[in-house]
Amino acid sequence: MIPGTPNDRFIAIAESLKPTLNTTTSFPIGLVKCVADEKAILGWTAEDAGKLEDVKSLRDGDQIIFDFGTHRAGFFEFDIDAVLTGVEPADAPVRLEIVFGEVLNDVAESFDDYKAWISKSWLPDEVINIDYLPALKYRMPRRHAFRYIKIKVISTSLRFGVKFSNPTAYAVSSAPTEDPAPLSFSKAGDWLSDEEKTKLKRIDEVALRTLRNCMHTVYEDGPRRDMRLWIGDLRLQALCSYATFKDYNLAKRCMYLFAGLPFNDEGLLCACVYEKPVPKFGGNSIVDYAMLFAVTLLDYVKASGDLQCGKDLFPIAAKQFSFFAKNFTEDLRYTIPERNMTDGGEGWHFIDWQPTLDKESSEHAIMIYCLKATQELAELLKLDAPSFVLPGTEFSAPITAIIEKLISAHRQHYFDASRGVFVSGPDRQVSWAANAWAVLAGVPESKEMAARALQVTYEMEDAITGMTPYLHHYLCEALVAVGQDRLAVKHIIDYWGSMVDAGAETFWEGWDPKQPRSSPYGDLHSNS
Amino acid sequence: MIPGTPNDRFIAIAESLKPTLNTTTSFPIGLVKCVADEKAILGWTAEDAGKLEDVKSLRDGDQIIFDFGTHRAGFFEFDIDAVLTGVEPADAPVRLEIVFGEVLNDVAESFDDYKAWISKSWLPDEVINIDYLPALKYRMPRRHAFRYIKIKVISTSLRFGVKFSNPTAYAVSSAPTEDPAPLSFSKAGDWLSDEEKTKLKRIDEVALRTLRNCMHTVYEDGPRRDMRLWIGDLRLQALCSYATFKDYNLAKRCMYLFAGLPFNDEGLLCACVYEKPVPKFGGNSIVDYAMLFAVTLLDYVKASGDLQCGKDLFPIAAKQFSFFAKNFTEDLRYTIPERNMTDGGEGWHFIDWQPTLDKESSEHAIMIYCLKATQELAELLKLDAPSFVLPGTEFSAPITAIIEKLISAHRQHYFDASRGVFVSGPDRQVSWAANAWAVLAGVPESKEMAARALQVTYEMEDAITGMTPYLHHYLCEALVAVGQDRLAVKHIIDYWGSMVDAGAETFWEGWDPKQPRSSPYGDLHSNS
Repeated sequence: MIPGTPNDRFIAIAESLKPTLNTTTSFPIGLVKCVADEKAILGWTAEDAGKLEDVKSLRDGDQIIFDFGTHRAGFFEFDIDAVLTGVEPADAPVRLEIVFGEVLNDVAESFDDYKAWISKSWLPDEVINIDYLPALKYRMPRRHAFRYIKIKVISTSLRFGVKFSNPTAYAVSSAPTEDPAPLSFSKAGDWLSDEEKTKLKRIDEVALRTLRNCMHTVYEDGPRRDMRLWIGDLRLQALCSYATFKDYNLAKRCMYLFAGLPFNDEGLLCACVYEKPVPKFGGNSIVDYAMLFAVTLLDYVKASGDLQCGKDLFPIAAKQFSFFAKNFTEDLRYTIPERNMTDGGEGWHFIDWQPTLDKESSEHAIMIYCLKATQELAELLKLDAPSFVLPGTEFSAPITAIIEKLISAHRQHYFDASRGVFVSGPDRQVSWAANAWAVLAGVPESKEMAARALQVTYEMEDAITGMTPYLHHYLCEALVAVGQDRLAVKHIIDYWGSMVDAGAETFWEGWDPKQPRSSPYGDLHSNS
Repeated sequence: MIPGTPNDRFIAIAESLKPTLNTTTSFPIGLVKCVADEKAILGWTAEDAGKLEDVKSLRDGDQIIFDFGTHRAGFFEFDIDAVLTGVEPADAPVRLEIVFGEVLNDVAESFDDYKAWISKSWLPDEVINIDYLPALKYRMPRRHAFRYIKIKVISTSLRFGVKFSNPTAYAVSSAPTEDPAPLSFSKAGDWLSDEEKTKLKRIDEVALRTLRNCMHTVYEDGPRRDMRLWIGDLRLQALCSYATFKDYNLAKRCMYLFAGLPFNDEGLLCACVYEKPVPKFGGNSIVDYAMLFAVTLLDYVKASGDLQCGKDLFPIAAKQFSFFAKNFTEDLRYTIPERNMTDGGEGWHFIDWQPTLDKESSEHAIMIYCLKATQELAELLKLDAPSFVLPGTEFSAPITAIIEKLISAHRQHYFDASRGVFVSGPDRQVSWAANAWAVLAGVPESKEMAARALQVTYEMEDAITGMTPYLHHYLCEALVAVGQDRLAVKHIIDYWGSMVDAGAETFWEGWDPKQPRSSPYGDLHSNS
């Protein structure tokens, strides 16, 4: 296949919105050592390891670990000098291994048995050689994501050890340097314990940091691994940013990048696009992400009031369904064509990384959810709503009629009246995804039925849960939509709180509290 | 101990003479692979591995080896692009191991069991990560010495392999970019076979390249390892340069660096000095090297005619003997105080890396050789020759008297009349070093006795030979001094020729044809 022809006007608009990054300078709060700890969720506890000034000389095999107190994405700089054994100056280069840790595991464990299917090149270890000492303001040239930095001396010489000073982190982000006021739970009442309120504050802090550290010249998927713009992540990040940093231009830039770099010449959207070295088509298209572009645009227009952008990009948002309508059977059951790849290419259906998840019902619901957003956008922008041809029909029907038909078909195919839940696939699998998306799409006939579907699913032991915070978000959004705010908050405390308990300073791509070392990529060390 | 106070005037003169480096651009002559070969002296043969254009895609574990045809010291630059598996762009950084090989062994063998006592940081391997592809004109920031460059792909991703293009070497040297005309052996007559003449031409070529690749902002000890200025190496390099590249300023700069950075406040010279990041005292002093400073200065003044420099530095050269006169016994036998270190600090006696070599007799002869140079310098510069106090005497004697006394004592202590050779130490060890230096110092009573001493030593099976080209040079110089030019040339063909046969593109710090993998540092891979 051939990439879609780039739209230079859209790319130029995107480039004109490229933000300047703000730099925040910070210093380690101390040195730590990693101690194996069975009680720690991820197996390690940090113990104080004294002060840098007291580390006299490091030689082959010695190491120190800086703790910068919390997580950032940015650059690392340090001074290094020789500590001489005798009178002779440092007579050789010094070779160092430097490892950047988002969590203790990164600096405590070897990467030798790394077994993820995503590239080993994402691992946060580097080997550097410094030829002449002292080397002042030695700056590591690549951006890293870290709370901890381990420096291990691979080799000095018989003549000298080394000593470090002025370790400095330069965090970069396009978010404003000041955080918004933290959430207050003073009015939350006594259905939340003080402990829970404290945990929620901490979750809010980590969530905000996650957002900040993913905000660069695009909304990045993760600050260490991937560092790339995906529609699904963009939608949630932009929503958070409207509520916190009040940044609208970054979301606008990101949408224009997608618009400017279509997957094909018909205008199907890529699931991700590349920014560097130059903006580039992303090579894969995710059905649910392409559909969610309309929702992302709607969110943006409502938050920013920027109707002009809405009008400019509406045709792209509005046409996405036309690429997927053919996936419905004539009786309007959404089918997912078989593919050989885990990801990549066209026709990827994501929803969540949970490998056993049946996705038909969720995708069907997402179609409805996103068509509704398209309809709302058309009204808001005073533009003509699109119409589509469904399988088994000869003529195009207006979007409102399509939405009605799809809702009706979804109820028919996927609602299990006996249990009051939505199911998916030939085995009538019950999952959080299927029920959350059905509820968000407004499929249930009443709010009570919607609430019941979520409640039953949530309490069902063998329901397929979510592996990503991404899906957990949609579960919570659905709970809030049916008035189950308190359950949503409790779930946030349980799920995101368990990441905090495990040492997260930013929330991860994937997280299963029951299998804390699991990762959608097959190795904890890639689970940024 | 405390370093000597730097002499700012001398350092300023040295810095004013810092040369600009010339850059020469070159490209690989092809790709090779290393094939184990029992017949090859160092164990490997290069086989043609095709053209770079035919290497379609390199993935995890794959490697290529560029052959640049010969050795250079400089920088490496290349273009790298992704070769996509499907339609998706390169979705991860690429991690590469890059190894610079002076000889095939460097790129054919693992460094994992490196066992030299000099730092592992000298090893010519680097690991780099490139975040965004294509990366055009990726330049490795550190200088390396290489004929071969191995690039091994540590990791790409499922989505892509990599392809290299435009591999480019930028050799740097302060030598002129044009080589002088190669030596001609057309008039040498038939005592040399055509094969020997061809070998001599090749030796001349490799010698010239060694010199060029050691000429930077100082005469460096070696282009890979050490990269530092030592008096002993400087003397021979400068001599070669006067005869070839006609460079005088670099030697002058080097001498002023030594003069500006004394070992102690009495003016003892360092054996080596450091240039980067700023000129710095070298922390050790070698007796024979300090003495040879006078010879180096004499050579320079004679070659350049620069009497002003000679006068400026003469007092420093002339005083070196005063530090070592105390090492003579009252009956004028040179003694070497015991030391615990292999190198470094004060009072190191070098001569050669041969560990079993007894050095007393050689050092004694070097004193004479260098005092004679001091005397000659004084005459040339029309300055007063120094006088010294020897142990057992109360008053200082003029240098001419000192030279006579030391010659007489040397004959008395070290000449074994029965065998006609010079010996050293309590076991009356016969060595090339002792006899070469005795001859160069003019100790033998006649040219015939000198020639006989060398002849007998050279043919004696258990005589201690030399481990370094440095000592082999002085053997040849002594042979020439006694009219044994032909034997000197034959020795050059045998010794330096055997390095050429082993694959040397530059001559090495140490070389024993009978133990080709031996190294003064304990590992072939440090034997630059």
